[in-house]
Amino acid sequence: MADKPVLHEYSPSGNCYKVRLTAALLKIPLERREYDITKGETRTPGFLREINANGRIPVLQIGDRFIPESNAACHYLADGSALIPATAYGHADMLRWMFWEQYNHEPNIATLRFWMGTVGVENLSQVQRLQMAGKREAGEAALKLMDEHLGGREWFVGDMISLADICLFAYTHVAGEADFDLSGYPAVAAWIERLKAQPNYVPMEA
Amino acid sequence: MADKPVLHEYSPSGNCYKVRLTAALLKIPLERREYDITKGETRTPGFLREINANGRIPVLQIGDRFIPESNAACHYLADGSALIPATAYGHADMLRWMFWEQYNHEPNIATLRFWMGTVGVENLSQVQRLQMAGKREAGEAALKLMDEHLGGREWFVGDMISLADICLFAYTHVAGEADFDLSGYPAVAAWIERLKAQPNYVPMEA
Repeated sequence: MADKPVLHEYSPSGNCYKVRLTAALLKIPLERREYDITKGETRTPGFLREINANGRIPVLQIGDRFIPESNAACHYLADGSALIPATAYGHADMLRWMFWEQYNHEPNIATLRFWMGTVGVENLSQVQRLQMAGKREAGEAALKLMDEHLGGREWFVGDMISLADICLFAYTHVAGEADFDLSGYPAVAAWIERLKAQPNYVPMEA
Repeated sequence: MADKPVLHEYSPSGNCYKVRLTAALLKIPLERREYDITKGETRTPGFLREINANGRIPVLQIGDRFIPESNAACHYLADGSALIPATAYGHADMLRWMFWEQYNHEPNIATLRFWMGTVGVENLSQVQRLQMAGKREAGEAALKLMDEHLGGREWFVGDMISLADICLFAYTHVAGEADFDLSGYPAVAAWIERLKAQPNYVPMEA
């Protein structure tokens, strides 16, 4: 890589942690720039114009090019590495879990964690508060699906760690912060320990 | 491809149409099997056990292997074709739009289309009805972002059609069914006509 990638991030975000964890496992150095999303720092005219018109982090910057969307940024860093399966089916199967993560997992588990831990339930709007029960139910269903899939296997795709594991790990391993009890999902709990034992693993707080 | 792929689908779904459109542009024949999601046909024990534990369509079947998630199924069909940019950055940039589609576009525009056109607003739950205004606002923001990105360019990524265009086209070109007015987004409207003019294009109803 010609330029050292720059990660525009809010470090408590699991979506940002995915990019840091991918880079760490691949030993790619990152420059980090912090924005406080609770203070609107990713919605300023400058950020919208120069970094991401969608007003969200993470964004991975490569020279003068910008890659929003956490899972796409991970894909860029891991391109050509063993973290992406080499076959057409393996590649699609990995992406299947990454799309599932953004549609069925993140909007439930990550959103509840953000509402409960950062925004505060007392500050939610009526429509947000009414969505909490549905998000809890969908979050439990996501964890159950993961637990059943992991029964008898070590990783989500094939027999090696891939971006699917990294991207699902980010919000799963802190699901307790949204009052999800992982002890009910033993295959998920074992997979979390397996991932933490990987060479060059970095914790979310690092 | 050794086996003729089987598409398990509900044909009015834009997510299923993405897979058909990708296959059509690449001249890959598909076998189609229809399930009526309004009658719970993707939530039966047999479907959950054999086709997709997540209870959703589309699922692309290749022999005895199954690929859920529309955008992952498109990626499998297009692997190695010109519909996926060959560089690491181009590939990630394409995936960036596909992840954005599933997170910022589909849950707003496609969900409103389904609620208004299939479920019926009178049959929505209170919490669904309360979400309609937010989904409309987010859907307009998604169309605005697309329109600004397409200003001065023909396709979403680089200068060739890619899966990003196909996956965004599916629900955008029928956004009028959810009362979004595309005449306010002229670059999007022009891009829709450009895509419809592609060789081997098939309409959603085909």
